Amino acid sequence: MNGTRKETMDKVIAWRRHLHRHPEVSYEEKETAAFVAGELRRMGWSVRTGVGGHGVVADMDGGRGPGKRIALRADMDALPIQDQKRTEYASTVPGVMHACGHDGHTSALLGAAERLAETSDSWTGSVRLLFQPAEEIPPGGAQAMIRDGALDGVDEIYGIHLWSQFPACTVHTAAGPIMAASDEFSARIVGKGGHGGLPHQAVDAVTIGAHFVVNAQSIVSRNSDPILPHVISIGSFHAGTTFNVIASDCRMEGTVRTMTPQTRVYLKERLEQVLDATCRMYGAEYELDYKFGYPPVVNHAEPTERVLSLARERLGEDRVSVCQPMMAGEDFSFYLEKVPGCFLFVGAGNDQVKAPHHHPLFDIDERALETSVDLLYDLATRR
Amino acid sequence: MNGTRKETMDKVIAWRRHLHRHPEVSYEEKETAAFVAGELRRMGWSVRTGVGGHGVVADMDGGRGPGKRIALRADMDALPIQDQKRTEYASTVPGVMHACGHDGHTSALLGAAERLAETSDSWTGSVRLLFQPAEEIPPGGAQAMIRDGALDGVDEIYGIHLWSQFPACTVHTAAGPIMAASDEFSARIVGKGGHGGLPHQAVDAVTIGAHFVVNAQSIVSRNSDPILPHVISIGSFHAGTTFNVIASDCRMEGTVRTMTPQTRVYLKERLEQVLDATCRMYGAEYELDYKFGYPPVVNHAEPTERVLSLARERLGEDRVSVCQPMMAGEDFSFYLEKVPGCFLFVGAGNDQVKAPHHHPLFDIDERALETSVDLLYDLATRR
Amino acid sequence: MNGTRKETMDKVIAWRRHLHRHPEVSYEEKETAAFVAGELRRMGWSVRTGVGGHGVVADMDGGRGPGKRIALRADMDALPIQDQKRTEYASTVPGVMHACGHDGHTSALLGAAERLAETSDSWTGSVRLLFQPAEEIPPGGAQAMIRDGALDGVDEIYGIHLWSQFPACTVHTAAGPIMAASDEFSARIVGKGGHGGLPHQAVDAVTIGAHFVVNAQSIVSRNSDPILPHVISIGSFHAGTTFNVIASDCRMEGTVRTMTPQTRVYLKERLEQVLDATCRMYGAEYELDYKFGYPPVVNHAEPTERVLSLARERLGEDRVSVCQPMMAGEDFSFYLEKVPGCFLFVGAGNDQVKAPHHHPLFDIDERALETSVDLLYDLATRR
Amino acid sequence: MNGTRKETMDKVIAWRRHLHRHPEVSYEEKETAAFVAGELRRMGWSVRTGVGGHGVVADMDGGRGPGKRIALRADMDALPIQDQKRTEYASTVPGVMHACGHDGHTSALLGAAERLAETSDSWTGSVRLLFQPAEEIPPGGAQAMIRDGALDGVDEIYGIHLWSQFPACTVHTAAGPIMAASDEFSARIVGKGGHGGLPHQAVDAVTIGAHFVVNAQSIVSRNSDPILPHVISIGSFHAGTTFNVIASDCRMEGTVRTMTPQTRVYLKERLEQVLDATCRMYGAEYELDYKFGYPPVVNHAEPTERVLSLARERLGEDRVSVCQPMMAGEDFSFYLEKVPGCFLFVGAGNDQVKAPHHHPLFDIDERALETSVDLLYDLATRR
Repeated sequence: MNGTRKETMDKVIAWRRHLHRHPEVSYEEKETAAFVAGELRRMGWSVRTGVGGHGVVADMDGGRGPGKRIALRADMDALPIQDQKRTEYASTVPGVMHACGHDGHTSALLGAAERLAETSDSWTGSVRLLFQPAEEIPPGGAQAMIRDGALDGVDEIYGIHLWSQFPACTVHTAAGPIMAASDEFSARIVGKGGHGGLPHQAVDAVTIGAHFVVNAQSIVSRNSDPILPHVISIGSFHAGTTFNVIASDCRMEGTVRTMTPQTRVYLKERLEQVLDATCRMYGAEYELDYKFGYPPVVNHAEPTERVLSLARERLGEDRVSVCQPMMAGEDFSFYLEKVPGCFLFVGAGNDQVKAPHHHPLFDIDERALETSVDLLYDLATRR
Repeated sequence: MNGTRKETMDKVIAWRRHLHRHPEVSYEEKETAAFVAGELRRMGWSVRTGVGGHGVVADMDGGRGPGKRIALRADMDALPIQDQKRTEYASTVPGVMHACGHDGHTSALLGAAERLAETSDSWTGSVRLLFQPAEEIPPGGAQAMIRDGALDGVDEIYGIHLWSQFPACTVHTAAGPIMAASDEFSARIVGKGGHGGLPHQAVDAVTIGAHFVVNAQSIVSRNSDPILPHVISIGSFHAGTTFNVIASDCRMEGTVRTMTPQTRVYLKERLEQVLDATCRMYGAEYELDYKFGYPPVVNHAEPTERVLSLARERLGEDRVSVCQPMMAGEDFSFYLEKVPGCFLFVGAGNDQVKAPHHHPLFDIDERALETSVDLLYDLATRR
Repeated sequence: MNGTRKETMDKVIAWRRHLHRHPEVSYEEKETAAFVAGELRRMGWSVRTGVGGHGVVADMDGGRGPGKRIALRADMDALPIQDQKRTEYASTVPGVMHACGHDGHTSALLGAAERLAETSDSWTGSVRLLFQPAEEIPPGGAQAMIRDGALDGVDEIYGIHLWSQFPACTVHTAAGPIMAASDEFSARIVGKGGHGGLPHQAVDAVTIGAHFVVNAQSIVSRNSDPILPHVISIGSFHAGTTFNVIASDCRMEGTVRTMTPQTRVYLKERLEQVLDATCRMYGAEYELDYKFGYPPVVNHAEPTERVLSLARERLGEDRVSVCQPMMAGEDFSFYLEKVPGCFLFVGAGNDQVKAPHHHPLFDIDERALETSVDLLYDLATRR
Repeated sequence: MNGTRKETMDKVIAWRRHLHRHPEVSYEEKETAAFVAGELRRMGWSVRTGVGGHGVVADMDGGRGPGKRIALRADMDALPIQDQKRTEYASTVPGVMHACGHDGHTSALLGAAERLAETSDSWTGSVRLLFQPAEEIPPGGAQAMIRDGALDGVDEIYGIHLWSQFPACTVHTAAGPIMAASDEFSARIVGKGGHGGLPHQAVDAVTIGAHFVVNAQSIVSRNSDPILPHVISIGSFHAGTTFNVIASDCRMEGTVRTMTPQTRVYLKERLEQVLDATCRMYGAEYELDYKFGYPPVVNHAEPTERVLSLARERLGEDRVSVCQPMMAGEDFSFYLEKVPGCFLFVGAGNDQVKAPHHHPLFDIDERALETSVDLLYDLATRR
């Protein structure tokens, strides 16, 4: 068995590095899905592809008789970020990178799949694997997979997120809200272009955009209940073409993270008020496209207790914690609106591996993959 | 003669529209220069091409005996702006446009060239025509043409700028500083990328860049002598790639306009202080590339009197004014550092044609071309 | 007994209105303390005055034999705010007002004192009453009273805060951090005065101060973990004397609220960095006086359970909640660092009475006083 | 004569130091006016007091026969600034100071008055002296004195301003606009007070006021023609009473300086737009009281030529310059709207004496007083 265990983990690392070298951005996970489906079929899973886009669903029944159907989910998409690592497994695709660990999620779930297949005689009930596309960009793959029946017949669901900000091979989760609602906006400020030396004849979209960004900070610092976690981040700002022409327009994109429906609606209103007043102040027009994205991820009490208990058993008390909520969003929330379950974090950082998620130097401590495989296997088989 | 005059002006308008349809950005005026050289050769001018890049120099002696050599200059380059006009002569080149009237300058000087050639028996002395490339972007074509001998033997020089903010067919100039020193900078702020929901783990280059833009306004409003005209415009601001990733860096380009050497140096120092302190405030790094561009255009007293006097004679007192300096820059300044001369504005706007220079809807009232041809001819021949 | 109960509550309301009419700011509660001491002596308590300033400590033993000594605390100080209410009990002292309910705390504790005295035969153990001065302004009265022995021999301590943002007669508390660390700073920016029309000869302390306030918003919005509640508020900003003289200096005062020691230290560092860089940007100097104030109020588990249980018994399940922490600070934290105890909120708002604490129209629903008297009595006697 | 000259100048310095020690703010120049009137009567002038408030008007006819009546004007008021000089003649009035040189203007005109009286046999025509109150604060004393007849029968008027930013004993003036229109505003932002730890329940007048100050910088840097000098200075900003209470309102005062009527009106509109949008952005209300103050000081051509010519004769070519306009305002503008005249600057600075006007360390080089006496005497007598 130890021999098999070692072999499986070697495969998991090989899969993860293969996926890391060949990342695909959200909604374009064609090769990743084909790779996953191929491996699952090889292992003997009953595989359905094209579920909610490039999603892959696989089913297997245990040999010990009927029981609950437990779903395990991994996401597969990468990000439009240029990989700046100098490892041999760095991304080979310019401007695209697995900077959030989804390559690890996918390969760990493949590892659990292999072990489940090899030991299918020994467990009861059914297991469903969900390899989900497009977690990073709303509307996301979860809703589409649910529409395509991915949760049909499922009794419980679990998902893991590797997390470089926690020490490798630790486990963290909590009942209740564990990840934020994650909304998205794009704004365009329309001023009036002109000669760089004649500002009074123009309406300067760079300066107005900059004032908007500065003004938006006050929404967070002054207008929201400080007890409720919330974030407004403006991820991109693009205006103008050259040094001596005043820009006629400015485009921005951003994300808003909240933990309650009330704050969610209030911050949208405040953001538009601030944008409106900033533009009015300088005589500019604007367009605002605000998209409500994923709701908060709210863990169910009993499945969360299962996770904490199984993790403590595997790893010991001191490697498991009840943690505070994260400001990141996740479309795992949609699954938890339908069936009971728990979303959990597996630490994947160490002294060398510590770049934050979505950073050009992001990486994981691959030992976390083994922890993930073990936990997924336990969650599927220990009932 | 009226027949000829009409024919010449029809040609001038045709040339201008041809050039307007086929704009070339600074340092790439290859076809424009070839077109100009071809026309000049056809008219009988002695033509030298490739002067200071794509510059064209043409010489002719009058038939009435020797005298001063008077230079007339036009610039030929266009701007990286998308033409948004719906005229039949709108630019055919995506993202490039004659948004500052240089097409008009070039065709008006061709018109004067034709009239000078047709009447060469009637005037004394010599005329040199300078068709200059790359006025819009420092180091500019003027210095290069001077290095290639364009001013050798020249006694006086004149140049016209069409100006849509003055009524068509009016003339405006003044002795002393008439256009600003025009300097240029590009700045890069280097923060630390990260997840949009985890701002405390990142150093947000969008927010820091926005604070810099806002802070820079105070340099103009608080730190400079309000009596001395000065402008800081940040023409472009580019940061980030997507809504939910905090940008790791931000690139800006801008222009600084001043009227004295002291203010010029002081604003450079202040800009760097403000950038440095803004970055220090938020833990970011920066790079600043600051290029001193063109010095102020300072008209000489006697040639300016000639211009005003000839213009009043042609157009009447009420169409000629002694004007205030402009915040726009011009590398005509380099010619005036070498030989006496005057730079003047010919109004080219009307009720319909009123977009400011460098605007996507910029255009000229073409009647201003005739005024320009007349003045250039007078300046070359009335001594 | 009902007759007595009604009489006691009439007295409590009369005391509260008397104190409300005659507020005294922190460290100057001389008359309030004398009033309290007089009433306590009248009731038969053993009274010690001048404890930690104007503090009053009173002791009584129950007639049913020895037991734990339980302390109950009320604070007595008012705020430098102009009362804008039009009630007959509005403050008679210009610029001073009980805008945080301490008049209610004091009179409710007097009410409990009266009932305890009247029923002293019926309860066991000892009760100590702490009437504390100077809660509003660090270093605060709690530390001084502790130094003067106010906690000597005390086994448990309880304190109530009336809260206008909760419905009257409800109870709210939680184990763990319940109120914020509350630190305080005063900053002075030293520029250079000058003529209002000559900004370039001055260093404008108003503009620099304003930039500091705006920049400080980004500390909250960008630099701190959004999961951890934190607030920076700049309560006062004073600069300049007249419209046409540029101010040479600017004085600000503010408060910083945090929930962990790490954030507490980090926000202090960031605030100074932002102040330093803002001043450096514009060539000003600064002085910063930053005072760490009260630590977070951290309730002990067992006493908190007692509070919740007694409250549910008195008021019913639906009037008692486990609440989230408050951003307000309290020097009750110092007592809880010494002995076990619990700090709790009693709702004091209704549809008419809803101005926030520290507001010029602040008031309480006086029915909350009876709830407070009941709870204090229960906490002292139900063991 | 030299003896007399020395005696007069000793008196002038003594007067100036007396006035410097006993400054009176605008509209309260009672003692100053009494002092001036007393000296003038002693010299033999026909004196009228209480002209336009505390103004003093004095008349004398020369012994050489009739001629033009020439008016000379000095202003007498001081500023609400705390003197920080350590000279024996420093202000003895707390918070009040001659920080703009009006003490020098008054004593120099008294010096000229003495010399005119002593030499009255030698000059023709009439001289009128105007000692004006309240130059610093609109509506100013000039209009009131004009209404009270101070200009009746006057043919020309001259006024001197000592200027510490020019070298002592130099003279500077120009025909046309020489000093700015000087308008004044006071603004009140009304938010909602609250607890410093609960920003979301308040509308923070400090933060909103700070944003307004920052936003107003963009009016100057982006919205006005940079060729036309203009300034917005916010001289005072007062909000809040203590560190932990969010301020409910904020009061600001400021000055706006412009050189043309169009800019004057435009900046008022922009200021209100920016204030309105800033308040709207954060849900605050505002009040704006905007007062148009003094128009620009526009010197007449011929009287200016007289000043320059007499000054060159007295002081030599190199101590006299045609200068650029000043951003400071002056109600001397009202006199020049009625009669021809010239307002001029006499340098009063040196290596030690260099604090700007309205600065707590402002002083003058007293040698400038002699230059002023000489020029005033010449302007009155050399016709």
